[in-house]
Amino acid sequence: MSADLASQLSLDHGGKILLAIMDGIGDIPIPQFGGLTPLEKANTPNMDKLTSDGALGQHLPVARGITPGSGPGHLAVFGYDPVKFLVGRGALAALGIGFQLQHGDLAARINFCTLGENKVILDRRAGRISTELCTELVESLKGITIPGVEIFVEPVKEHRACVIFRSKGLSDSIHDTDPGLVGELPLGVIATAKGAEFTVGVVEDFISQSSEILRGKVPANGLLLRGFALHEEMPTLTDRFKLNPAAVALYPMYRGVASLAGMEQYDSVPADLSGEVKAAKKAVMDGKDFVFLHHKYTDSSGEDGDYERKVREIEKFDNAIPGLLECGFDVICITGDHSTPCPMKLHSWHPVPVLIYGGPQRAGWSARFTEREASVGALGTFHGHELMALLLAAAGRLAKFGA
Amino acid sequence: MSADLASQLSLDHGGKILLAIMDGIGDIPIPQFGGLTPLEKANTPNMDKLTSDGALGQHLPVARGITPGSGPGHLAVFGYDPVKFLVGRGALAALGIGFQLQHGDLAARINFCTLGENKVILDRRAGRISTELCTELVESLKGITIPGVEIFVEPVKEHRACVIFRSKGLSDSIHDTDPGLVGELPLGVIATAKGAEFTVGVVEDFISQSSEILRGKVPANGLLLRGFALHEEMPTLTDRFKLNPAAVALYPMYRGVASLAGMEQYDSVPADLSGEVKAAKKAVMDGKDFVFLHHKYTDSSGEDGDYERKVREIEKFDNAIPGLLECGFDVICITGDHSTPCPMKLHSWHPVPVLIYGGPQRAGWSARFTEREASVGALGTFHGHELMALLLAAAGRLAKFGA
Repeated sequence: MSADLASQLSLDHGGKILLAIMDGIGDIPIPQFGGLTPLEKANTPNMDKLTSDGALGQHLPVARGITPGSGPGHLAVFGYDPVKFLVGRGALAALGIGFQLQHGDLAARINFCTLGENKVILDRRAGRISTELCTELVESLKGITIPGVEIFVEPVKEHRACVIFRSKGLSDSIHDTDPGLVGELPLGVIATAKGAEFTVGVVEDFISQSSEILRGKVPANGLLLRGFALHEEMPTLTDRFKLNPAAVALYPMYRGVASLAGMEQYDSVPADLSGEVKAAKKAVMDGKDFVFLHHKYTDSSGEDGDYERKVREIEKFDNAIPGLLECGFDVICITGDHSTPCPMKLHSWHPVPVLIYGGPQRAGWSARFTEREASVGALGTFHGHELMALLLAAAGRLAKFGA
Repeated sequence: MSADLASQLSLDHGGKILLAIMDGIGDIPIPQFGGLTPLEKANTPNMDKLTSDGALGQHLPVARGITPGSGPGHLAVFGYDPVKFLVGRGALAALGIGFQLQHGDLAARINFCTLGENKVILDRRAGRISTELCTELVESLKGITIPGVEIFVEPVKEHRACVIFRSKGLSDSIHDTDPGLVGELPLGVIATAKGAEFTVGVVEDFISQSSEILRGKVPANGLLLRGFALHEEMPTLTDRFKLNPAAVALYPMYRGVASLAGMEQYDSVPADLSGEVKAAKKAVMDGKDFVFLHHKYTDSSGEDGDYERKVREIEKFDNAIPGLLECGFDVICITGDHSTPCPMKLHSWHPVPVLIYGGPQRAGWSARFTEREASVGALGTFHGHELMALLLAAAGRLAKFGA
């Protein structure tokens, strides 16, 4: 709603916006920290300064009580209602490696795995084989042909690859073939809705041919398919908000969701926060007026339940802020795509703290960027996809509604 | 949504409600006030008392990040979702001078202007001519005739007038002829959508005839048209909430939007807050059970960036409260139609503080009517068009939903 109106009212000029995502930043009290969250425990002098000169709030990525995947979480903060704009993991993986998906392509993630006798799964990740071996295996699969279907197989990282089927009439109503457990057989190709019969045949043929090719290869003698997703183009941030957007992210997944939103990718050299700051600076110098910058490791540490490491990752991000302040942004937003509480070791539904610095704000109400202060901040509690309107407004990029 | 339910559940009896609007009341911290807002800076013993005996909250007139014009801002607090009920400025201007618009009428605002050689605009407001001269010019334009179209030209104030075209098949997809700049020619009559060809011809004819009539008149020898709006009737507050509503407002614009909602106009003598209080009292004595009272100057001072004057206008309004308390209202709500932060000199998207006094409230939670206390008040944060349900509820005018 807010994003639709913002789309109608967007101006093609105004301030430059940085949207910095600390992935999975939201957390819950950690008993070992005496009930403080990692954000509360961390030493964050730079974010504290932005907080007292800016305003806090919190966003619900999807809806109350709903835990988002990384795709919906990011789409939301890019201004897309994730309930309307669904993107499968397979499509994100393909986009993330720079594969130019076309409207109607069916993408799925491949996990190379180790199968034992009778094809029982012994290791769902084939001992996390090297990316080099993954690339070799992918090459061997490029010989697969299915009449009437173009097939692209691409390596991703370690045991992960992806496959894209291109043909008319494909469906993504296909269940994962990965049962999610070792000691089980891979699942057959099962349609989850009517009209997927043709696709079932195509995928069965692909699995059958790949089984022949991989037979006897150690340790990766099988594959599992997950996250079937039909690619549908969506309006970009340029279409919707008249932005000239850029993305700075190290991981394929986040590059993928950014490219869905029409962002130009900027590479980080070195591949760490210092390189990301440099890339953000270059994007601004190139005339980009919206930069998405992604910090992954707050999420990884949360998923590992490593609260001490999450604190260090927050502090690392805080150290990068002076560099970001020098890039020439008019509005800086720091938030996450979802919460990943360390005690849960999982994504969660908890609201995600938001800091907006720049533009006219009810500043001076908050002192530290924490879940608790954000919950009573001047910006209030809102849906993730409403964030974009607040950023565009702060940057002077929205016209008035009505006379 | 809330207003739709409130409409279904409305009772034809209950308490009397005052909705007092301090136009543009919301603000942001003023550096010269040490970070206080005008509301925080002002001395407001009467509102403080209502606050501690009532409850605070804040409303979003349209949506997060969206800045409303005066029309949408007022419609919202009258219980109309402003995204569904759109009203153009021309229609508001016509309604504001008491012109009885009919369904399908096309209204536009006229600015008399000064044109130089080759018709270049020298002054978009013709030196703000007197209302007397405006009335004379309007009389001279009443000779214009266009076959098949009824034309009404009416003076508003100073250089401002309005024109209403009455015919079948009119469209308001017509661009302003005011380019918004001096040194430019008035724009031609441009359709902004298909199906406006007939209207383009009518408006061109009107401009052509008026040019002949105004030729050589000093300083107002031309006119600019703005805010084309087709009038569509909307359900009144009587239709929707079984109210018998009145409006007390000094300015045409606000009288206009009030009459759209079916409110009877009460004149203020003298034309200031003291007169407005008298008019409100008379309305209650006449049996009105809903009175909208409008205080303009908090907005004007905000638009001028004059934070000291905004404080004085807040204090003037506070001084009027004892008089309002004597009128016999059961529920008194004080809020704004939008924020007009002095540092911005513009309407803004910031939430607007709301005070409700009367009826069963979670009272005693707040001490002063300020943006900050309102942001964490008992009423919470809600959409402007949900306010009406809270007022009707407080006045005992809503039935229970479901058994």
